[in-house]
This record gives sequence, structure tokens and C-alpha cells, in this order.
Amino acid sequence: MTVTVAVDAMGGDHGPAVTVAACLAFLRAQADAAVILVGREEILQAELARAGAKPSDRIRVLHAEELVGMDEAPALALKHKKNSSMRLAINQVKSGEAQCCVSAGNTGALMATAKFVLKTLPGIDRPAIATTLPTQSGHTYVLDLGANVDCTAEHLLQFGIMGAILASAVDRKERPSVGLLNIGHEEIKGGEVVRQAGELLRQAPINFHGNVEGDDVYHGTVDVVVCDGFVGNVALKTSEGLARMIAAILKEEFSRSWLTRLLGLVAMPVLKAIRHRLDGRRYNGASLLGLRGIVVKSHGSADVFAFQCALDVAYHEASSGILARITEDIAAAGAAVGS
Amino acid sequence: MTVTVAVDAMGGDHGPAVTVAACLAFLRAQADAAVILVGREEILQAELARAGAKPSDRIRVLHAEELVGMDEAPALALKHKKNSSMRLAINQVKSGEAQCCVSAGNTGALMATAKFVLKTLPGIDRPAIATTLPTQSGHTYVLDLGANVDCTAEHLLQFGIMGAILASAVDRKERPSVGLLNIGHEEIKGGEVVRQAGELLRQAPINFHGNVEGDDVYHGTVDVVVCDGFVGNVALKTSEGLARMIAAILKEEFSRSWLTRLLGLVAMPVLKAIRHRLDGRRYNGASLLGLRGIVVKSHGSADVFAFQCALDVAYHEASSGILARITEDIAAAGAAVGS
Repeated sequence: MTVTVAVDAMGGDHGPAVTVAACLAFLRAQADAAVILVGREEILQAELARAGAKPSDRIRVLHAEELVGMDEAPALALKHKKNSSMRLAINQVKSGEAQCCVSAGNTGALMATAKFVLKTLPGIDRPAIATTLPTQSGHTYVLDLGANVDCTAEHLLQFGIMGAILASAVDRKERPSVGLLNIGHEEIKGGEVVRQAGELLRQAPINFHGNVEGDDVYHGTVDVVVCDGFVGNVALKTSEGLARMIAAILKEEFSRSWLTRLLGLVAMPVLKAIRHRLDGRRYNGASLLGLRGIVVKSHGSADVFAFQCALDVAYHEASSGILARITEDIAAAGAAVGS
Repeated sequence: MTVTVAVDAMGGDHGPAVTVAACLAFLRAQADAAVILVGREEILQAELARAGAKPSDRIRVLHAEELVGMDEAPALALKHKKNSSMRLAINQVKSGEAQCCVSAGNTGALMATAKFVLKTLPGIDRPAIATTLPTQSGHTYVLDLGANVDCTAEHLLQFGIMGAILASAVDRKERPSVGLLNIGHEEIKGGEVVRQAGELLRQAPINFHGNVEGDDVYHGTVDVVVCDGFVGNVALKTSEGLARMIAAILKEEFSRSWLTRLLGLVAMPVLKAIRHRLDGRRYNGASLLGLRGIVVKSHGSADVFAFQCALDVAYHEASSGILARITEDIAAAGAAVGS
């Protein structure tokens, strides 16, 4: 079956210059995929022509007059931008024209609009934002990354179940392990909400590992790390900052003199391999989990390669049928924890 | 004036093998410092002898019969270990025999004991744990790192003031800038407590920059980053995990074949410079701020160099008279925000 991805082609810092090229690369890589490019028709047609492509049954253009600004308040975008490229892309998922959608636009507006249009799955109070982060030998799913600043223990339980299903569906892992992000491994650690969440997760029908600490994320101790959106967002952005600083220090030290520049040239194959493994673009594409539809958020600054990675995330989620599985497992967990 | 440091010589994973050697190196570097080694006399004397040193007016031994275990419950350590090396080291600060103390022991027990023996400064509800993290061109102070899981807005305000004084006293910075760790730069971001803390910090007599995000920590956007202990601990440990993963990837890629090993040898001077700049040991030594005395916590796994760095932190804080300044500035801030 063809997986059709609705793409908010106007979103992100670079708009169609990036999104259209990424969609064409994505279609070359995934033979059973199709794309609906949503945005200003004349711009998108021009961008397709520039790339030597034209609309076909695998890539078509859906005109959207408006555009949600990167700094626009989510509530205002929801109320006043009913013909935005973001809104129409999500509508495609709602109507069944597409099996998933991807946007590099304003995160708050995307979450608000997706929640309004698609609604949450039964048993889910709040959608969460999930992404993968690299470990030495694979990756870890982390959620929530900023959709929910204040979470109850039940929300964290739901995140744990959704994360486990995501890991199991996309990576075909049986019984992926779930850890609760805390400041110590002992059950008594953390505040009230986190301790309660630990109790709920222990009773849930998932492979709950117990508490994990910040360093466990990159160690790959568990397949899924659960936390509230404030903590997850800080951990993610702190990591981005540290990685950027380390990259800058590497660059600075290798360009200190003609000798170090020469050493850098000599060591280039190894430095390239290292850069590839640490390339954050490969981890682009965060899932808005818990909605009645698949919505993936790309980093606003994504380039063609990074945006293509986000398209892949949406494609793999749609192919693996995660929506039905989340619904089933949340119902089972609800029965198990008696909620 | 001589600065005397009381050292819990038995604490940490390695005990006297590390602490005694570090103290001797510290005394060689700081001509106006003295050390009181607190712990089992026979062990410490043997360790001094092994290093070819003997007690003098600059390094003396204070016998302590007991030892607080690394996993011992803080409340039990406080109640039952009144003759522990940790407790007696803190007592030296209380009595004025020492101007500061350093321990690599159990963090919870150290905080509980220090709070009980020394008490908090006027206007401070809860002590915080502060440390520096590297930036590309310097360092940033971050607090709290785990002493306070649930914080009120007033606690975060106090952390901001204490952090500013620490940066100003130790680094001789005039009006160091303070940022509030949040998930966006806008004032409306974050939960109730963080938003309220933002309002209090804006009114306080400090150079408040506003909200900062996780990546600002390593970017060096501000001199001091304020957050609750849960968030700070997760950010710190996530960073440790990421740094460890990157180091492992560097090592792995440079030892992949005889060719890459050779390239690694050739590039060694640059790799060494990079390793030095990213050496976490240089940032060892977290301050327990807000007490009526200077207490510095070393990482439990510290080696001789790292423990010496923690001794330096205590020494510089004592030399710069931060206690009196925190007391003054908290009083001024209390008047300014009308609390």
C-alpha cells in the first residue's frame, strides 16, 4: 500500500527551497511513498520545475493561501489561519488523503492545530513530542520534549506506553525497555509526581526498567526514556549546546596553525566518520504522539538531508501502524492500572 | 591570611590514596593555604609517609573514627555518625579552625550534615549546589544541581542572587548576568513557578538577563544559570553522558584499523589539546551555597587532579569572602522584592 505524506511545504526557516528538494529525494528512496506538497501553488510549481520535476501521481501540489509564522501565537494561528499550509496538511491526514504529515513550522501552532483537527486517541489526555537520540550503539526514544510543561503521573504513564509502542513498531523491538528520568536510581528519588509515575509504570503492562539518570540517555540503558516536557526540552537543548561546543573546539584546535590544519587534513577520513556518527540531522523528526493521526515535526532550521530524515520518520510510523497499537495498549494499561 | 581547608580525607571512591596526594599538590600550588586531613589517623599518617611528607603547620591530621558510606541514608548518617570524617571536617568550619571544607563523600549526607551543623545564612531557605560548566571561551555557573527537587519561585530567586555573588566574588566579574533556565525565551514560557521566579528575578538587584534555554548553558550566554535541582541534575548528567559517548566514538573511530590508529598518533598533539579543554576533572568541585560556611563537594570518583580542583574551588571561595557578600545581597534583595 502506498504511504502518502502531506508536507507543509512552506514551514521552517528555508521553506520550499528545502522541503521540495527533500520530498523528491525521499520519493527516490521510498518506492511505495507519495507526497502532497501543501503551500503556495506558484512557488511550489516553480520549485519543482527548478528541480527538473513535475507533478505526478507520486507528488502533487495542494494550494494553501496562508502561512503560519514561526513566532505566531498558537491560539491565533489556530483561530485565524484556517487556510494555512500547516492546517491543510493536517486536514489531509484527517480526511484520509494522507497517512501522515510533516511540518518544520512553529511547534506550538503545529501541536495546537493537530490536536484540534485530529483529536487525541482514546485514553490519552495529552499528546507528547518524542524523538530519538543517539547512543554509542543505537538510539533511545525520549519523550516528552516540550509539549507538556506540567505533567501528572498519569501523563508520564501514558508517555511510557506510547514510547514503548513507538520503539516496538518502528524498530521492531519486542518488549522495549522503558526508564523514568529521575535524579537517582532509587525509588524514593524525585518529587511527588515522578515517584507516583514510577508506581504506575511498575504496574503497567510494559517492560519497565525503573528510574534512569541523565547519563543513561546516551548510554542506551533503556529503549525509551520518559520525562515531562520541561525536563526533556532542557535535556535535549543542553545536549545540542554541548555538541555544538565540542564541534567548535575540535574545529578551533585543528585550525590553530598550519601544522594542526595539516594534521586535520591527514586525519580527515576519521574526522569525517566521527562527524557522520554525531550528525544531529540524522535524528531530525520528532513525533507528535497520542493523536488520531501521525504528525512529525522537523527542526525549523532543517536542511534537505535533515528534512528527508523527518519524512522517513513519518513514513516508518505510518507503515508500522502505530495508531491502532497505541489505542489497544493504552486500553490494556488502563485496565491494568485500574484507571 | 592563611586559608585552612578541612578535608574529609576518607570520602569518595578512592579515599586517602587520592585525597592526601591531592592535598599535598594543592599546598605546593597555594602558598598561603593549610590543610586539616580528617580521618583515620593511622591510615592518613601512612599515606603521608608514603608520599614522603609528614605533618607540619601546613598539614595536620585530625583523627575521626567513623566513615559515612557512599550509599548511607543522609538522615541516618546525621543521627548516628557524629564522629565521622565528614562531620568532623564540617565541625572545623563551624569552630573557625578552617575557613572551608571539601568532601568527596555521599552528597545527601554532606548536605544534611552541613545544613545541620552550619545552618543556612539569613534570608536563605535552602542551600543549593552550584558548579561551573565549560563554555567555548570560559565557564558558566549553574545551580541548583540536585539539592532541591521541588523549588518555589523564592528559592529560585535566592539561587540567582547566590549564583551572581559566587561569579562576582570568584571570577571578579562586575554585575555578572543571570539567566533563568526555561524552554523558551519569552516571559510566558514554562510552568507557574518558573514564570513567577522570572518576575521576582526581574525585580531583584541583579543583572537579570531573562530566560535562557538549555543550549545557552554551553554557549555562555550568561554567567549564571538558575534552575531547580531536578532539572539541573538531569542537564548535568545528560551532559556527562553525551561527553562520554562522544569520547568513546572518537576513540572507536581512531582505533578502527592500523591506518586510523596511525592517523590518531599523528594527530595526537591536537587530540590532546582537545581532551584537555574538555577534561571534566577541571570542573570538579560543586559548592554548597547558602550555608554559614563554605562546603565543597567533589565528585566521588575524583582522581588526584580532580580532587585538587575541588580544593581550589573551596580555597578561592574562602579567599574572596563570599559568605559576607551573600548575606548582604540577600538582605538587599529581600528589601527590593518586598519579601
